[in-house]
Amino acid sequence: MIRVGIVGGTGYTGAELLRLLARHPQATPAVITSRSESGLPVAEMFPHLRGRLDLCFSEPDTGALAECDLVFFATPNGTAMKSVPELLERGTRVIDLAADFRLKDPALWERWYGMPHQCPDLLAETVYGLPEVNRDAIRRARLIANPGCYPTAVTLGFLPLLERRAIDPSWLIADAKSGVSGAGRKAETNLLMAEVGESFKAYSVSGHRHLPEITQNLQTFAGIEVGLTFVPHLVPMIRGIEATLYARLTDDGLDLAALYQSRYADEPFVDFMAGGSPDTRSVRGSNDCRIAVARQGDIVIVQSVIDNLVKGAAGQAVQNMNLMFGFDETLGLEALAMLP
Amino acid sequence: MIRVGIVGGTGYTGAELLRLLARHPQATPAVITSRSESGLPVAEMFPHLRGRLDLCFSEPDTGALAECDLVFFATPNGTAMKSVPELLERGTRVIDLAADFRLKDPALWERWYGMPHQCPDLLAETVYGLPEVNRDAIRRARLIANPGCYPTAVTLGFLPLLERRAIDPSWLIADAKSGVSGAGRKAETNLLMAEVGESFKAYSVSGHRHLPEITQNLQTFAGIEVGLTFVPHLVPMIRGIEATLYARLTDDGLDLAALYQSRYADEPFVDFMAGGSPDTRSVRGSNDCRIAVARQGDIVIVQSVIDNLVKGAAGQAVQNMNLMFGFDETLGLEALAMLP
Amino acid sequence: MIRVGIVGGTGYTGAELLRLLARHPQATPAVITSRSESGLPVAEMFPHLRGRLDLCFSEPDTGALAECDLVFFATPNGTAMKSVPELLERGTRVIDLAADFRLKDPALWERWYGMPHQCPDLLAETVYGLPEVNRDAIRRARLIANPGCYPTAVTLGFLPLLERRAIDPSWLIADAKSGVSGAGRKAETNLLMAEVGESFKAYSVSGHRHLPEITQNLQTFAGIEVGLTFVPHLVPMIRGIEATLYARLTDDGLDLAALYQSRYADEPFVDFMAGGSPDTRSVRGSNDCRIAVARQGDIVIVQSVIDNLVKGAAGQAVQNMNLMFGFDETLGLEALAMLP
Amino acid sequence: MIRVGIVGGTGYTGAELLRLLARHPQATPAVITSRSESGLPVAEMFPHLRGRLDLCFSEPDTGALAECDLVFFATPNGTAMKSVPELLERGTRVIDLAADFRLKDPALWERWYGMPHQCPDLLAETVYGLPEVNRDAIRRARLIANPGCYPTAVTLGFLPLLERRAIDPSWLIADAKSGVSGAGRKAETNLLMAEVGESFKAYSVSGHRHLPEITQNLQTFAGIEVGLTFVPHLVPMIRGIEATLYARLTDDGLDLAALYQSRYADEPFVDFMAGGSPDTRSVRGSNDCRIAVARQGDIVIVQSVIDNLVKGAAGQAVQNMNLMFGFDETLGLEALAMLP
Repeated sequence: MIRVGIVGGTGYTGAELLRLLARHPQATPAVITSRSESGLPVAEMFPHLRGRLDLCFSEPDTGALAECDLVFFATPNGTAMKSVPELLERGTRVIDLAADFRLKDPALWERWYGMPHQCPDLLAETVYGLPEVNRDAIRRARLIANPGCYPTAVTLGFLPLLERRAIDPSWLIADAKSGVSGAGRKAETNLLMAEVGESFKAYSVSGHRHLPEITQNLQTFAGIEVGLTFVPHLVPMIRGIEATLYARLTDDGLDLAALYQSRYADEPFVDFMAGGSPDTRSVRGSNDCRIAVARQGDIVIVQSVIDNLVKGAAGQAVQNMNLMFGFDETLGLEALAMLP
Repeated sequence: MIRVGIVGGTGYTGAELLRLLARHPQATPAVITSRSESGLPVAEMFPHLRGRLDLCFSEPDTGALAECDLVFFATPNGTAMKSVPELLERGTRVIDLAADFRLKDPALWERWYGMPHQCPDLLAETVYGLPEVNRDAIRRARLIANPGCYPTAVTLGFLPLLERRAIDPSWLIADAKSGVSGAGRKAETNLLMAEVGESFKAYSVSGHRHLPEITQNLQTFAGIEVGLTFVPHLVPMIRGIEATLYARLTDDGLDLAALYQSRYADEPFVDFMAGGSPDTRSVRGSNDCRIAVARQGDIVIVQSVIDNLVKGAAGQAVQNMNLMFGFDETLGLEALAMLP
Repeated sequence: MIRVGIVGGTGYTGAELLRLLARHPQATPAVITSRSESGLPVAEMFPHLRGRLDLCFSEPDTGALAECDLVFFATPNGTAMKSVPELLERGTRVIDLAADFRLKDPALWERWYGMPHQCPDLLAETVYGLPEVNRDAIRRARLIANPGCYPTAVTLGFLPLLERRAIDPSWLIADAKSGVSGAGRKAETNLLMAEVGESFKAYSVSGHRHLPEITQNLQTFAGIEVGLTFVPHLVPMIRGIEATLYARLTDDGLDLAALYQSRYADEPFVDFMAGGSPDTRSVRGSNDCRIAVARQGDIVIVQSVIDNLVKGAAGQAVQNMNLMFGFDETLGLEALAMLP
Repeated sequence: MIRVGIVGGTGYTGAELLRLLARHPQATPAVITSRSESGLPVAEMFPHLRGRLDLCFSEPDTGALAECDLVFFATPNGTAMKSVPELLERGTRVIDLAADFRLKDPALWERWYGMPHQCPDLLAETVYGLPEVNRDAIRRARLIANPGCYPTAVTLGFLPLLERRAIDPSWLIADAKSGVSGAGRKAETNLLMAEVGESFKAYSVSGHRHLPEITQNLQTFAGIEVGLTFVPHLVPMIRGIEATLYARLTDDGLDLAALYQSRYADEPFVDFMAGGSPDTRSVRGSNDCRIAVARQGDIVIVQSVIDNLVKGAAGQAVQNMNLMFGFDETLGLEALAMLP
């Protein structure tokens, strides 16, 4: 049994970590910090944890956190990098669910996140926590950058085609759609149900922070330059991401189904559907990524769905934890999607 | 490990049984019947089961079902009673999630359900599967009538007050609200999202089939005549029931919180909140029933929430199965509610 | 053509007033104030007004407002009472959509709204803007207290029964449900779509500010003491209120349909349905109130639906304006409900 | 005042036509046919019309329809073509809201719609009812093919760029999203709220019937060959279409804002936003199409939103009627979008 800490436990990724960890047979939440809610029983903010998690939010305290085997950061961007170096030094491993350690180039990071990076020296050793490409490195890692939600769905969707060099890498289109929980638990007028319910819109059309992360992934994992256009949209639902990906096939004879089938055959959380279109509810609440492909002429269309809070955040973090500590990779992640 | 059969696996209660049983450590789905979908892999209709349940729908066949230790009927009303006698005779125990065996009085049943009862002789031995009142009888039962969704929420809400004789039993009001999955998976225009989305309405205002079931419960379990008015409403959401109950307090000094606290102290799936109002999402996907009480003058207001597909159907059925076969009552039902 | 001013134009009632007034043939919005958004074109905050309303938010300025024939206050409670006296003095008529002038008893008002009243002397002359009971007084009024959303639905629902003395007035139950726009356009976490979507709950169970308003209405308009229990609920939809009302019939032979039919026969915005249950979408975006009644034994069940932003706020305010200035009562309110 | 007939009045486009025509100052619904509901008062099926439209559904009867000045067909594909020739012969003008007359090439039509065309000879004279390109021809037309919902949003979005030859026409991507009312009022399991609520998915990924219609539009109106990839998606909301369009700019110096501004400057129902992203609610219930553009490198991104039932169907049909009969083009279409 390992002891884990969660920094920033009042947001949706924090709540989702608690939902998964409260039932995990090998990990127990020992510390949950929140500057604003210090002293409040966690179950008072999240009633579904009543009777299942007897813990209070506490003031952030690196000392207490350092006594954990692992600390998850479910904090706004720019927070984790302040305390990660000390935690690592004291032997505590870290999974950051924010963006602090996702980009390898600190200059690029600072341009997109608008602040100086506090520990650029750690970026080299940081392992990007996408098990489907970095499984072995994750097992040995001290510090994991947990992938963003959009990057997880888009990267897993494009990967097989790029690895096979089957598409023109110079123009890739990713039209992605997310439920509102992806925007976080913030008191903002533009996230009210009366504002986003029964409506649909694109946002960050001129450039979203996940664009450089996705581009880095595709270039690193496939080893080629790519030109990507990425446009996110807001869907009037709570959970789920669907990414529809467009590219021009350069290998006309390619058996798309066989390619995806073989690429993900051994992956416990990636399911390829030979036909049809996956809906986000088929992965709701689960750590699954479900993918389907189709063609219109020489344009290949990939559909990739995940639950943004699970495979797109907390679930993937637990999957990484399982790998880091030698547990069964699926431990605590067995629950099936909630459908309907 | 017991072998279970499910008759009528294509509806929402059937799908929910599969979601719960696919991960149950002591029970394995062996037979799933569907007249319309015979031969179809279950996972083709329910993609969230892909790779987790390798079974096809089969033609209803009492012979095959009789080889199971337990058979769940997730069928329309009037179906189970046709094959239950033979199954019991052949030693297979039965949990009926429909209404065939819920009312003790066959004449009353026939009036509300509009058909003759096929085996009224079985009604006497049938155990009403509400563990909070019938736990021991359930352990020994051959045949369980699994409670309706509204009756579960309303009965658990009124019970402590009636057992204590603390309210005037002659006028009880139950204003209940349910998500659309409660209406089942039927191809009906009036259940389309474009019809029921973004709208709210009452229905069956002059009398709903759950009224006699609730009345029977309250009278049987509390041992007094009651006069109940019950009005259900349709909420534009998928899962969840909230019942707001009104009664006149006859014992003004009563400590309501202490009453509910003590009544449900040992119940694994009933949680009493001293203050506030429970929301349906706090039990979504879980087998919990969450209750809170308040007063306005001498009127007591009870709020009771459940997930209509879990504690209101499949989850309670699994809870009953666990009791019948001597498993831990909470086995396979540990997952926390999905919030958000 | 009259010139109207709107104080507090950035909330939902303000936006709804603009939607209705932008097309009104006899009234033109001349001033729209907002402390926070002063200078901003209204159409930048509300894109559906682009090209249809060429006006900017301005600093609140009694001088400018006094040049209007009528001023609507769509402000938080406690704001209108500060400037209403001066406006009336300068000959400008006022419709307050907040609660400042709704309760006749200033002590009662101060208890529920937690602040001293600034002009209790005006309460006597204030006319409660419910045309179905105060039509003539509204025509002559200088100052209108526009009814609350719940009070409109509940009062119109109970009124015919109380006027006829057909029910026991000592215990009335009003179980009301509202869409989220009723909570206003506030940056609050508990109104986020990820918090209130796909969920249902009661709130203010021990007492809501609309309780004294409804009680005052029923007692004033029916001329008898009443005992009312009122519980509001939050529905995962944007617009609409449904109130289910319960009372004990004292006149068993009463023809309920005939009673409601005749009471509202001449009302342009109240529609009585002889059978069935009205859904909120049947009045969405319109100024209609739709009512149906049913019985269970001696309990009468009234269902009353309105759009909380129209008949429950801005639409009723425009209806009052039409009466005050001698326009056709339905002017600018002819649009049918948006269904689906 | 003209007399209009509606064939197939029980679907959503029929209901929307009634909502708009019931308040139209120059047109009055005289005949509404429905094979299934003949004899039923229209207001019994659509309660929002109670007291506002005193008409019953009648058996389809070309004789009665021929006495109308104009007949709208809101029928399944393949129905209108059976009676249109006779109606035209008898001097009644026709607007078909289905697809029967949208494609100029009967062979192409038969391939996509899977049935022989009954009057291919009429295709030549049919005018495609998109006022933004065919205004004059519409005024003189006997027979209008009312555009599809997706084709309206996508065509208006791409048009200025293609007319200006500013993009590479050989690869155009249209990623479109629609609310569920676009699927019509059919009793199908896959349209139930419990199936499509809280979920998002693509559909018809290998080719949708609107693809040839859009391609024909772009080629006809811009006069060049185009290569288009079109993928529709289902959004968990009732009304609204958002289309995100991708193309490669060939004229790097082009002022996109100026182009769209000037192209649509005189259009009463097309609004170009210089910045930001339009949301579907900003046109909900209105006949508006709202467009915005952005760039990522040399990729231009166009966002186009409409209400699929208004500008995408019934509203555009009324706009066409207004043109055909010399009324003000905006008559009966003045209502602003319902926001929130």
